[in-house]
Amino acid sequence: MTNETRPLATRVVDVMMEGDAFSQWLQIERLEEGPGHCTLRMMVREEMVNGFRIAHGGISYALADSALAFASNAHGIKAVSIETSISHLRPVQVGDILTAMATEDNLGKRTGVYRVEVMNQHGRLVALFKGTVFRGGDPWFPEEIS
Amino acid sequence: MTNETRPLATRVVDVMMEGDAFSQWLQIERLEEGPGHCTLRMMVREEMVNGFRIAHGGISYALADSALAFASNAHGIKAVSIETSISHLRPVQVGDILTAMATEDNLGKRTGVYRVEVMNQHGRLVALFKGTVFRGGDPWFPEEIS
Amino acid sequence: MTNETRPLATRVVDVMMEGDAFSQWLQIERLEEGPGHCTLRMMVREEMVNGFRIAHGGISYALADSALAFASNAHGIKAVSIETSISHLRPVQVGDILTAMATEDNLGKRTGVYRVEVMNQHGRLVALFKGTVFRGGDPWFPEEIS
Amino acid sequence: MTNETRPLATRVVDVMMEGDAFSQWLQIERLEEGPGHCTLRMMVREEMVNGFRIAHGGISYALADSALAFASNAHGIKAVSIETSISHLRPVQVGDILTAMATEDNLGKRTGVYRVEVMNQHGRLVALFKGTVFRGGDPWFPEEIS
Repeated sequence: MTNETRPLATRVVDVMMEGDAFSQWLQIERLEEGPGHCTLRMMVREEMVNGFRIAHGGISYALADSALAFASNAHGIKAVSIETSISHLRPVQVGDILTAMATEDNLGKRTGVYRVEVMNQHGRLVALFKGTVFRGGDPWFPEEIS
Repeated sequence: MTNETRPLATRVVDVMMEGDAFSQWLQIERLEEGPGHCTLRMMVREEMVNGFRIAHGGISYALADSALAFASNAHGIKAVSIETSISHLRPVQVGDILTAMATEDNLGKRTGVYRVEVMNQHGRLVALFKGTVFRGGDPWFPEEIS
Repeated sequence: MTNETRPLATRVVDVMMEGDAFSQWLQIERLEEGPGHCTLRMMVREEMVNGFRIAHGGISYALADSALAFASNAHGIKAVSIETSISHLRPVQVGDILTAMATEDNLGKRTGVYRVEVMNQHGRLVALFKGTVFRGGDPWFPEEIS
Repeated sequence: MTNETRPLATRVVDVMMEGDAFSQWLQIERLEEGPGHCTLRMMVREEMVNGFRIAHGGISYALADSALAFASNAHGIKAVSIETSISHLRPVQVGDILTAMATEDNLGKRTGVYRVEVMNQHGRLVALFKGTVFRGGDPWFPEEIS
C-alpha cells in the first residue's frame, strides 16, 4: 500500500527538519545523511554576529548540534543530546559558508558519541564539536516495527 | 570633560551588546554585569525550536555563550572563547523564560574559566555550561590606559 | 539479625574503595560522603610527576574521577562515568595536599551531572572537573530491596 | 662538535619522558612521535583498577594526557594542557594493552587542539580524548635558536 522508498535515515531527518524552526531560520541545507552521519551547510548572515562582529559562537554550535541530532537519530531510534563541547578555532565572517560534517565515533545501546567538524568555504576547520547522546529506545516510526 | 560615570564592565557590555545582532535577535535582556560575572534573560519563541518541538540546543548555548562573553570581557581586557561545553539537563519549551548566570571559576593572565547556569522560570537548572577564554591582552578602551 | 548501622552511602563507598586498587595506590583518604556528594584527600608523591616535574594531569583527574564515582554511586544505584572534562588551572607540586569535593548539579533517572573542585592545601583551586554518569538502574545491595 | 642526529620531536619527548615519573610508573612505551602527533602503549595492571574491578578512569586519561603532552610539545615549543575531556566508551580489563594515538586537529600561535584515540588490543575504541593546550612561546632548547 505504501510507496515509501526513502531510506529510514532520510525519513527521520525529513520529519525532524520539518519541525525544526531554528534550523530553518539558520537556512540549513542538508547535503547528505545516513545512519550515524550527516553533512549540513549554511551561510552566515548579518543577524548572526556577536559583539566582535564575527559569527556568534551559538551559530557554529547550532549548526553542529543539528548535525549531531540528525546523525544520531538517523538510526531510527530517538536520541537526545546530553553533553556537548565545542572549540572555536577561527573567526567566522558574515558571508562565510559553513559545512558541518558529523561522524559517529561510538554507538552503544544507550549512548552514542559523535564528532562534528565545521569548515568554512576555504576548507579550514573553524570549529570542532563533540557530542554524546542518550538513546531511550523509542523508535521514530513504531508502526513499522513488526 | 567626560561625564562618563558608567562602570567599566557596563561600558564594555554596552559596546558588545550594541554590535551583537544575534543576542538582539534572541531578545536577550541584561539583568546585571560586573568584572567576571553577568546575568542575562530571554524568552523562548516559536522560531527557536528543534525537531522535537523543544528549544534547539543552540538557543541555551547561545544565551550561555553571550553570558560568558560579557562576564569575561567585563574586566576590560578582550577575551575570546576557546573551548566550551554544555549539558542539556531538561527540555525547554516555547514561552519559557531562561536566565543565564555566569560566574568566574578562575582568572589567570592568559585564560579564564567560567560556569554558566541556565535556569527556567521555575528555578530549575535546564543547562550547565563551562567556558574557557583566552585573553590576548588588548584593552577595550586603550585610550584610558595611562 | 544484621547490626548494620552505616548509612547506605558509606556502605557503597566502603565496597567500592575496598576494590579500588588505584585509589589505594594514590593513598586517597575519605573525608566525607553522602548521596550525591563526596570529599577526598591525597598527597602528591614523587612518582606522580610528569615531564615538567609537576603533578601529571592524570593525578588530579584520577582523584576527581574517584570523587565522582563515590558521589554518584552513593545513592545506592550503580553509576558509570560516560563523559568527563577537567581544566588544569594551577601547577601542583610534590608534597601538595589535594582535596577534591564532588557536588551534584543534576540527578535524573538515567544520568547525573557532577562538579568536582580540586584544591591545594592553600585553598587555591588547582583543577575543575565536570562529570556525567549513566545510571543503569542496578542497585548496589539488591538483597535490601523489598 | 655535537653529533646530535635525533629529530627535534624525539629529543623533546626524550627529555619529557626522562622526568615523567608517572608515565614510567604506568610503563608507557613510545611507539612513534613527531610534531603534533604521538602514539603510546601500556598494559593495564592489577594496581590500576577501580571499585568496579575495571581500569580506573584515571589510567586511560593519564595515557591520553601523556600522548597529548608529547604530541603538542614535539613542535619544540613548551605547551601545557588547559582543558581536556574524555569519554569512557568500553570497560578496560587487567591485562589489556592500550594504545593511545594523538593527532593534531588545530595548531594556532597560542593554542592547539588534539584528539587522542585510546584503543585496546582488539582494535576497539575504549576512550576518546580531546585536549586544548596553551603555548607560552618558550622553546625546549633555547640554545639552538639562532
